[in-house]
Amino acid sequence: MNYISQELKQFSKQIKYAVDNYKSHGISADSISNIVICGMGGSGIAGRIIKSYFNDKIAVPVEIVNDYSLPRYTGPSTLTIFCSYSGNTEETVAAYQIAREKGCKIIAITGGGQLQAKANADENRVYHVEGGLQPRMALGSPLTYLFLIFFDLLGQYKNADLTKIAEFASNTDDYINQSGEIVNRFAESVSNKYIIICDPFFEGVAIRFAQQINENAKLEAFVNVLPEANHNSIESYYGKQNTNFIFINSRSSNRTNLRFAFLKELLGEAVVAEILVKDTSLNALYHNIYLLDWMSLQIANKVGAVSNQIANINSLKEFLSKQ
Amino acid sequence: MNYISQELKQFSKQIKYAVDNYKSHGISADSISNIVICGMGGSGIAGRIIKSYFNDKIAVPVEIVNDYSLPRYTGPSTLTIFCSYSGNTEETVAAYQIAREKGCKIIAITGGGQLQAKANADENRVYHVEGGLQPRMALGSPLTYLFLIFFDLLGQYKNADLTKIAEFASNTDDYINQSGEIVNRFAESVSNKYIIICDPFFEGVAIRFAQQINENAKLEAFVNVLPEANHNSIESYYGKQNTNFIFINSRSSNRTNLRFAFLKELLGEAVVAEILVKDTSLNALYHNIYLLDWMSLQIANKVGAVSNQIANINSLKEFLSKQ
Repeated sequence: MNYISQELKQFSKQIKYAVDNYKSHGISADSISNIVICGMGGSGIAGRIIKSYFNDKIAVPVEIVNDYSLPRYTGPSTLTIFCSYSGNTEETVAAYQIAREKGCKIIAITGGGQLQAKANADENRVYHVEGGLQPRMALGSPLTYLFLIFFDLLGQYKNADLTKIAEFASNTDDYINQSGEIVNRFAESVSNKYIIICDPFFEGVAIRFAQQINENAKLEAFVNVLPEANHNSIESYYGKQNTNFIFINSRSSNRTNLRFAFLKELLGEAVVAEILVKDTSLNALYHNIYLLDWMSLQIANKVGAVSNQIANINSLKEFLSKQ
Repeated sequence: MNYISQELKQFSKQIKYAVDNYKSHGISADSISNIVICGMGGSGIAGRIIKSYFNDKIAVPVEIVNDYSLPRYTGPSTLTIFCSYSGNTEETVAAYQIAREKGCKIIAITGGGQLQAKANADENRVYHVEGGLQPRMALGSPLTYLFLIFFDLLGQYKNADLTKIAEFASNTDDYINQSGEIVNRFAESVSNKYIIICDPFFEGVAIRFAQQINENAKLEAFVNVLPEANHNSIESYYGKQNTNFIFINSRSSNRTNLRFAFLKELLGEAVVAEILVKDTSLNALYHNIYLLDWMSLQIANKVGAVSNQIANINSLKEFLSKQ
């Protein structure tokens, strides 16, 4: 495994770090009428995962914003949460400024930079993330902080569960073996593009996996969510696809289970893996995020991609900094 | 052009039909704290287009649901809007039932079926859509009803604008010529997969276009939204892509404009078309939806796809009906 696997091995520590450093934000659920989570790429994906998980649990709308601005409805009764690993992501910093002007409630999750400086100056709550990694390899802490923030709003205390999850994720050899076994079965097709077919519960996790394939293996990856994709994308599933289809289904809807069964028949050998999911627990969620992260590195390894180099992103940043 | 173009030519009439048959829903903006729009495929996409358009205009959160259930937060202060062309889409009918049990405010947009029967029995407002087409070829009426519902909430009256838009869309020869000229330039690559790169304003329109390519041309099509896709998908843009990239940008953010400029350089000849957009007006929105719809048929024509046959969807429906 290449260099970047050393970074991924820190997932367990990152979870633990957030649990150890979390302090209640003190915002009561009654004082907010909606929540907006802002962040980009590896820093933004935690919000999407959280949104899917709390869809049937939280009593206010949650929106994910990956842009420079905020929706019109945001205001003093909006809880805005800003995630930026470096603290200098230009979209997130711009959106922070708008939240400030609109009088939103603000929480920042960051490793430093402008976001930390501004949030400290404004006396907003800042949850600190340890630096030095590529942002996408630092998911453990922001994700866990977000879970703690949301459980806090619900008056729930899950620190013990999260600590257990951190312990489980420290068995990196198991994850490396398991992910390696799955990816070994892809054989020649490993360098094809990937389509991850998921149900709504796993939408955030599937998008995370696609992004990890993009950045770590330098391969194309897309997400189709069921039941919606059964109304359109399915009409492009004719003939040979040159695609690796990977299924991930929480099995929380009988009708959606049938849709997966139908696609399995239809796509045949193009379905290279079905990720087996026990339930919709926090455990299962973290487990699958981490397993899929390792799979992305196994794929990178097979195709000989240099995962820790992000040449296009660096060129873009240089281009933007000159404007 | 193949048979289905006769259906697409009715777009103008569909817009006019909605304007002529719209009556105020009588729901005041003060009585709702959020809006949820439910629908699948060709019936659901109107909601996504609306959400992007009203992002900077409406004072409550708007969520699109493409599933059997509703988020936890929905209740008496939620305006739920159900779109189903046939009125028998199982996901939409299931979600309607939940909205009813939770005491949500309900509006239905449908051509008949169970949705119409239930909404009538419950004395909810029903906006009628003329039947007989493939659902994706009937977008004009549901889209226009949704605009009228939203403008109504904002206390705005746009019937004259929409009537003008309907007149403009009746120039089908112009659309056929313009879309034909664009697609002729794709040459050999026309049967490759498509990636539509858009800004957040055009996200709904880009998804619509991708779905039309799926169903009409039987080709793969995906959407990458900027600035987000600059943080991940860009790392899969190395080497030859076997992809037709199409750009659609509302030009409402200077920084995002720069991101498009960078990608144009990076992707070179793989960018087969840039859709020129004048502004973020209602006019520009309808114009581009219709132009891209025609482009999907021009692509279908070039690759010899039979657009009006949806064999996979029909097999799936048969499979599901037996369970």
